[in-house]
Amino acid sequence: MKKQLFPLVTADIALFTLIEERLSVLLVQRANEPFIGQWAIPGGVLDPSTDSDLEQTARRILQSKINVKPGHLEQVKTVSGAVRDPRGWSISILFSALLPADQVPAVVGDKTQAVQWCDPQNCGHKLAFDHQELLEAALEGLRKKVRNRALPLHLLPSKFTLTQVQRVCERVLGQELDKGTFRRQLRENADLVELEGEYVRGAQRPAQLYTAAPGFVFKDA
Amino acid sequence: MKKQLFPLVTADIALFTLIEERLSVLLVQRANEPFIGQWAIPGGVLDPSTDSDLEQTARRILQSKINVKPGHLEQVKTVSGAVRDPRGWSISILFSALLPADQVPAVVGDKTQAVQWCDPQNCGHKLAFDHQELLEAALEGLRKKVRNRALPLHLLPSKFTLTQVQRVCERVLGQELDKGTFRRQLRENADLVELEGEYVRGAQRPAQLYTAAPGFVFKDA
Repeated sequence: MKKQLFPLVTADIALFTLIEERLSVLLVQRANEPFIGQWAIPGGVLDPSTDSDLEQTARRILQSKINVKPGHLEQVKTVSGAVRDPRGWSISILFSALLPADQVPAVVGDKTQAVQWCDPQNCGHKLAFDHQELLEAALEGLRKKVRNRALPLHLLPSKFTLTQVQRVCERVLGQELDKGTFRRQLRENADLVELEGEYVRGAQRPAQLYTAAPGFVFKDA
Repeated sequence: MKKQLFPLVTADIALFTLIEERLSVLLVQRANEPFIGQWAIPGGVLDPSTDSDLEQTARRILQSKINVKPGHLEQVKTVSGAVRDPRGWSISILFSALLPADQVPAVVGDKTQAVQWCDPQNCGHKLAFDHQELLEAALEGLRKKVRNRALPLHLLPSKFTLTQVQRVCERVLGQELDKGTFRRQLRENADLVELEGEYVRGAQRPAQLYTAAPGFVFKDA
């Protein structure tokens, strides 16, 4: 066997959004070996001739394969080793990306691959490579930030109600939150800007609309 | 210029310990180009023929270059890009490592390189590559965990007093902690095991000795 001097380097992305108010992650069906036909999180190989860094690799893959520009992209961790990819020694830099619910493309991907939005906790597929572990790490990273009071506003449309903020946090955490406590915490939060005079009318009284503060970043409070 | 097909992949390690009760990080003086003569955190190139994964790369480098086996080693983040290393497109997987104060080797490194234990906040050198940024990221990661009540017991000898636990947390955070509050938090902490009948005698009354619980991991409470 030929000695492998260089590792294979890929960026893999857990892309989260809300589909019908449920937290969802994108899976793609692999069109090539290895693991042809199996489902995986989207990813691709680093191209040093075009990518300025690995964040750029991830953005290029999302743009070219899925036709999306995420509102938020961050590194989760790097996995590596001689055995995780049958092609040889490999490194995967795992990213987590958030896509606003109103920016989900009607058709994602191209004709060469099937795609699917799945429940990240129970995707119903045996994933290729170590992607099950990667998906779990990305979900846990997202949950940890929300537990530490970061607001995943990049999953919401640009205007939203406080009820929507609570709902998206609940969907990420997988559990209901006490409304009184949650509202009290939001009051101290400078990430939200009230949109003066803008309301949503529903069955109940009109609900104030908010938007993310300029320069908002999804990070721990 | 030849087109670069593969990135250079290195593991770089911020190795922390306590030297005379002060939090210290190890720097090495580079013996080779690029940045020959400048100070850097220790690092080395991935060798796919010997390393099972990048954690192993980091451990091999610490063992061979510094002659230490850290008590704790974890990934902090991965930096990458076309311009951060003059040799070309490069990836550095940054690790943070903790070495117990009583395991600091009398002589570290070999004859080819100078080494130095420095104050991580003010090392007094302009570091090679982006190592200043890497050092800051590793220190902030360490602080964040301690703020989240992880106990950096891997910086202490195997037996320690509660005063030493408080002191090491204070050294990491760079600020004093209220003794009453800190002791109350420790009472709920299952990571500490009282060593029955073992005390340290000092100027005051004897202080109970503790050790880390079996399987202790340095992680957020």
